[in-house]
Amino acid sequence: MSSDLHQKSVVIDGLIISDFGRPVFEDMRRGGLTAANCTCCVWEGFTETMRNVMRWKAWFREHGDIISQIYTTADILKAKAEGKTGIILGWQNITGIEDQIGYLGLFKELGIGIIQMAYNTQNLVGTGCYESKDGGLSDFGREVVAEMNRLGILCDLSHVGAQTSTDVILASKQPVAYSHCLPAGLKAHPRNKTDEQLKFIVDHGGFVGVTMFPPFLKRGPAANVDDYVEAIEYVIDICGEANVGIGTDFTQGYGQEFFDWITHDKGYARRLTNFGEVINPEGLRTIGDWPNLTEAMERRGWSTGRIEAVIGKNWFNLLHNVWGA
Amino acid sequence: MSSDLHQKSVVIDGLIISDFGRPVFEDMRRGGLTAANCTCCVWEGFTETMRNVMRWKAWFREHGDIISQIYTTADILKAKAEGKTGIILGWQNITGIEDQIGYLGLFKELGIGIIQMAYNTQNLVGTGCYESKDGGLSDFGREVVAEMNRLGILCDLSHVGAQTSTDVILASKQPVAYSHCLPAGLKAHPRNKTDEQLKFIVDHGGFVGVTMFPPFLKRGPAANVDDYVEAIEYVIDICGEANVGIGTDFTQGYGQEFFDWITHDKGYARRLTNFGEVINPEGLRTIGDWPNLTEAMERRGWSTGRIEAVIGKNWFNLLHNVWGA
Repeated sequence: MSSDLHQKSVVIDGLIISDFGRPVFEDMRRGGLTAANCTCCVWEGFTETMRNVMRWKAWFREHGDIISQIYTTADILKAKAEGKTGIILGWQNITGIEDQIGYLGLFKELGIGIIQMAYNTQNLVGTGCYESKDGGLSDFGREVVAEMNRLGILCDLSHVGAQTSTDVILASKQPVAYSHCLPAGLKAHPRNKTDEQLKFIVDHGGFVGVTMFPPFLKRGPAANVDDYVEAIEYVIDICGEANVGIGTDFTQGYGQEFFDWITHDKGYARRLTNFGEVINPEGLRTIGDWPNLTEAMERRGWSTGRIEAVIGKNWFNLLHNVWGA
Repeated sequence: MSSDLHQKSVVIDGLIISDFGRPVFEDMRRGGLTAANCTCCVWEGFTETMRNVMRWKAWFREHGDIISQIYTTADILKAKAEGKTGIILGWQNITGIEDQIGYLGLFKELGIGIIQMAYNTQNLVGTGCYESKDGGLSDFGREVVAEMNRLGILCDLSHVGAQTSTDVILASKQPVAYSHCLPAGLKAHPRNKTDEQLKFIVDHGGFVGVTMFPPFLKRGPAANVDDYVEAIEYVIDICGEANVGIGTDFTQGYGQEFFDWITHDKGYARRLTNFGEVINPEGLRTIGDWPNLTEAMERRGWSTGRIEAVIGKNWFNLLHNVWGA
């Protein structure tokens, strides 16, 4: 069964951190992705992040037949019409601005539309979810949130600690998101969010993208795409189907060196966690398998309206709300 | 006599390097400037230049009642209609990209529309006009010129050495400019251009902006606005009135520290020249006196068409040609 619904829908993946290049971009087309939030900063500082952005600009030229850069939601519709995958440049850590709030405006102008406030550990803004203590959003962080609000950059909290997340949710004048998380109700894990956390963010106008990253799924590497849909449904039951989307967290093409880098503080310091072997859910091994996710939703008996909302429309509305266009 | 012609014209100053801030911006309004190429890189590297751009973005917000940023010539017309002065961000040295050609695209997107290939001394691209030898455009520099052509960034050669200038004029597929220079025919000086150089650039589709910087004027600090118009006319006689504009080089608000910085290689190394006291031509002491320049042209009996062309229209056409919009 090939899903017509998938083909015709606006499909948005709220988090991909893969070994970007032609093979991944081609797989995004196979997967029918209209747009994806692609990570271009994890532990990097200002200059390295600018280099990453520079590399993306070259890719937009070299692979302009299949990808295009997204600045506004109008660009997402244009990508859909042209049969390309729109790339939203995003960060999983706000280290890219170093200590300069003014850099946010430069990056926004270059197309960075989503920024996570912390990645696993503490930074100048707040604290990540693998720290033993979380003192919450710093005063500098409050200024950062205000500037992100002014510019229209979505605050992402997926890897952020509980207290900092609460503080950002309350400080932000715009909706904020867990772009890629799973419910702790199905598996206890520092990266997973409790029912209360899921409810809290949407009660404050926020959004939840659900990841399929196997170490956080109940059945781990044994999980399949139906387990993933079960987890999404669990989140919908708490958050409502208008406030939930997908953020797969595909790490396609990467090997051990990459996982060592992301699981050590600053990329090299203490080890924070160990994923073991990362095997994506059966039926959703690669980005190109994305249509299987839509089919699994159909198989589970979801309404067309719910599926369209969860695979793209909800992300679209959130981004339109935050970006203002 | 207050010039109606000045009031209604698009007036473009091809080079201002002043102590930017509200007082200078207000003086630009008094001077009736529609747009100006404002220097934001002289000796700086990548990060410092990004900081300068960041500072400009804050000024655009804080002083949005009187200035606006120029990305296209349509923005210049918009500034004129709104009674603001449009700021073209420009560099007097290509050090801002360090060794990364890909940074050019980032800066173009942030609004840098004009870049000088070298400032007085040698850099990775070529050689400045105060070096004892000029080996011409480097092979790296050829790649830089090609990328500037692709992006639509005007190559400026005012402070560039003779051989490098010739090489850039021949290498560039787009028109290039001396944005602010004076004729060596009126005063011999390393910064002034010979009749042959002036003819060569326009014979290859290029452009000449004429500066009033007193150390390069025939009568030096004794010069007045009529001496400046005489120098402009000298250049027009060689280049034709469609290929000549104004690039004053106002250094308003700066003191000795600034002049020491720009007259030493890299801002601190060997001294390159010594201007002595910089006294702008009588009648054109400040940016706010700009209407006197238009009046001096009228006094000299220039046609309305020639004046309109030289005070703005020619710059506008050049930028439209290079920027593509």
